[in-house]
Amino acid sequence: MKMPETASLPRRVVAEGLGTALLLAAVVGSGIMAERLSGGSVGLALLANTVATAAALVALILTFGPVSGAHFNPAVTLALAFRGDGRWRDAPAYIAAQFAGAAAGVWIAHAMFAEPLWQLSRKPRDGLPQALSEFVATFGLIAVIWSCSRKRAQAVPYAVAAYIAAAYWFTASTSFANPAVTVARALTDSFAGIRLADVPGFIAAELLGAATAAVLFTWLLPGRNMREA
Amino acid sequence: MKMPETASLPRRVVAEGLGTALLLAAVVGSGIMAERLSGGSVGLALLANTVATAAALVALILTFGPVSGAHFNPAVTLALAFRGDGRWRDAPAYIAAQFAGAAAGVWIAHAMFAEPLWQLSRKPRDGLPQALSEFVATFGLIAVIWSCSRKRAQAVPYAVAAYIAAAYWFTASTSFANPAVTVARALTDSFAGIRLADVPGFIAAELLGAATAAVLFTWLLPGRNMREA
Amino acid sequence: MKMPETASLPRRVVAEGLGTALLLAAVVGSGIMAERLSGGSVGLALLANTVATAAALVALILTFGPVSGAHFNPAVTLALAFRGDGRWRDAPAYIAAQFAGAAAGVWIAHAMFAEPLWQLSRKPRDGLPQALSEFVATFGLIAVIWSCSRKRAQAVPYAVAAYIAAAYWFTASTSFANPAVTVARALTDSFAGIRLADVPGFIAAELLGAATAAVLFTWLLPGRNMREA
Amino acid sequence: MKMPETASLPRRVVAEGLGTALLLAAVVGSGIMAERLSGGSVGLALLANTVATAAALVALILTFGPVSGAHFNPAVTLALAFRGDGRWRDAPAYIAAQFAGAAAGVWIAHAMFAEPLWQLSRKPRDGLPQALSEFVATFGLIAVIWSCSRKRAQAVPYAVAAYIAAAYWFTASTSFANPAVTVARALTDSFAGIRLADVPGFIAAELLGAATAAVLFTWLLPGRNMREA
Repeated sequence: MKMPETASLPRRVVAEGLGTALLLAAVVGSGIMAERLSGGSVGLALLANTVATAAALVALILTFGPVSGAHFNPAVTLALAFRGDGRWRDAPAYIAAQFAGAAAGVWIAHAMFAEPLWQLSRKPRDGLPQALSEFVATFGLIAVIWSCSRKRAQAVPYAVAAYIAAAYWFTASTSFANPAVTVARALTDSFAGIRLADVPGFIAAELLGAATAAVLFTWLLPGRNMREA
Repeated sequence: MKMPETASLPRRVVAEGLGTALLLAAVVGSGIMAERLSGGSVGLALLANTVATAAALVALILTFGPVSGAHFNPAVTLALAFRGDGRWRDAPAYIAAQFAGAAAGVWIAHAMFAEPLWQLSRKPRDGLPQALSEFVATFGLIAVIWSCSRKRAQAVPYAVAAYIAAAYWFTASTSFANPAVTVARALTDSFAGIRLADVPGFIAAELLGAATAAVLFTWLLPGRNMREA
Repeated sequence: MKMPETASLPRRVVAEGLGTALLLAAVVGSGIMAERLSGGSVGLALLANTVATAAALVALILTFGPVSGAHFNPAVTLALAFRGDGRWRDAPAYIAAQFAGAAAGVWIAHAMFAEPLWQLSRKPRDGLPQALSEFVATFGLIAVIWSCSRKRAQAVPYAVAAYIAAAYWFTASTSFANPAVTVARALTDSFAGIRLADVPGFIAAELLGAATAAVLFTWLLPGRNMREA
Repeated sequence: MKMPETASLPRRVVAEGLGTALLLAAVVGSGIMAERLSGGSVGLALLANTVATAAALVALILTFGPVSGAHFNPAVTLALAFRGDGRWRDAPAYIAAQFAGAAAGVWIAHAMFAEPLWQLSRKPRDGLPQALSEFVATFGLIAVIWSCSRKRAQAVPYAVAAYIAAAYWFTASTSFANPAVTVARALTDSFAGIRLADVPGFIAAELLGAATAAVLFTWLLPGRNMREA
């Protein structure tokens, strides 16, 4: 999950953008498919959406990790830069690629399912329980990434996918846990959407959860916390 | 699954408490979500609950294992202390953190799903078949942890998650297999709950199952069984 | 999947018996639970049965593999003895333990679910397509074990579990692929059962499939095929 | 995923054919079983089909990878030959074995489920969204294989299976992503089928997606790209 430096910045930025696009295509595309095929059973639809999202995360982190670190998530990029496992000066390019890729991924999903490309979600997701859900979801995600990337890097793809699979079900918000994903999901009026008006609250809760995890794990896993030189 | 000694006791205890809290939030939260979305299909609800619980176990054991050993379970802490892979004098702090974390996790789940924080389960789970189920469930869990932690430590997170996923279905009690989880699940009147009156029987069966596994595997996998010095 | 020789024969035989018992408890127990909770949806019941069986295989092979090799299956024991990765003279004790353990596992499942211990299945499973299914199922299982145990031993638990999960769905017999499992499943009048009269046909097809795989893979993966001295 | 050269060409070709046959038996067989058991819930049927296909891919790639590289897919064989990880002169034998094996696998599935061996699908799968789906599906598959086989070869079986599981849901075509699979699935009038008339469009989109991925990843992961000597 570090930003590998063997690949040039353009390569890393393309990998972040492409990986995030495929991730969103998977999240939104499987949401559309699940909604169409589930015959009204929301539980079955969320189960299919969970399987597809977790499986996509395993495949995409394994594929793009060696190039860019496979963050796909501004909260992850910021947390790793804070820890010293990424250059602050690379973060803006990473984050721009994540937002752009996420939006592109939504539109690819719409195109594959013959839906209008441009949509805005009307699905309300507000209130304190939703905010608490995003706080917990992102706190947990950063905890998983922080510890595994330092102590058991080979397991990161499986740990992240497993965590998100669980969090789809154990948080009331179905765990967006990612500012780029949150904005992009405002662009689809499907199963996976979120009303634009509710995006800022989600993002605030996500960043707060990420920051809390970063501070706690700085204490919990002491040691090298500054970038070498 | 050993108690690592590189981390200080306060760090290890916080990790046990936090990990157990997230585990219970996952078990109870996904139970609530599953009940709400399953349209009355208990089979679908338990399947979703199974996927979420197993996935949470993979992620949380990978994350907290390097700090505290990720027991999340008094029966595990006691079995490993008995084997010599943990200090007896650390066990009380571990177990206290597990019980406190488990209760906190239930309340976090209630808060995320806008449920009253304080609840008591009314779900009866009594009778000999239930007790036998918990005996078998915990016997198997300790068997899995005992052998894997000694012979294939890298596989512990996957082995434990797989075992619990199976045991959710193959035991009549849906496999609590954990005294801290049992007490905490008395605090939720949802899908995952257990009536307070049935808690002692469950815990007795769990401890008996754990002890039986510990004795059997002491014979089955001989060798180093005392703490070095 | 070899028979490890570090453990004494009594330990290995107990491990085979206990592991096979837990496997059958998982297969039959999850079948009963799935049937009870699925509200008549056989598809949902088989999906839950699949998840539980595959997960149990991962956990049990990881747990008992280091002691006995975790065959849990006379066809596997015979194929590995044929290949030279097991002593012919140990095979009878292994096979006896597998049959005894399998029956015990069925009875444990019945006890946990408050069912009569002694049952005989009335579920017919006959005809050529069923026999072909068992031939294919066991051919594939031995192929998976033969290749992985030689070329990628660490992956055996996952490969076997994945194979059986697939074969539950892609064979018309739901893939027993194991003579001990076949006999034991005649002892339960539940979802997972098989009529006693159909057992011999299943076992014949299984042994033929195993033998075919053993001969083909002796050619496909040449090299050491005789036990070293 | 390279073509290993330790095995002779006949062995490698038999492995490719046999592996592809078992893969198609799994895809089509589980599709028939799922359709029969799902009681009209297409979502449940696709979920079962997804689990079976992904599990089969894990088992079969682990099993046949050490012999032939376990391509099972002409697009993979061509992409790896283009990259220099396979001899161009072996490709025709590989591809012939894949097409023959795929057809045989469909017929094995039909025989196991007591269906007429010879069938032709009547299921239409045409239009631009379907073509785009196959382009995306195969682009992603080659991306996953290209990167993992070079950077993390041990993870290839899991990455490929996870990717296909996701793509079954996130593409509107349920992701054939394989010309041999596409032709073979025209030979079954079941859940998994495709009308013969729609096969050429699928294959064109698949090859275009594979070529795009090959070109992009040649840039994204520079370095050794020509066969040594």
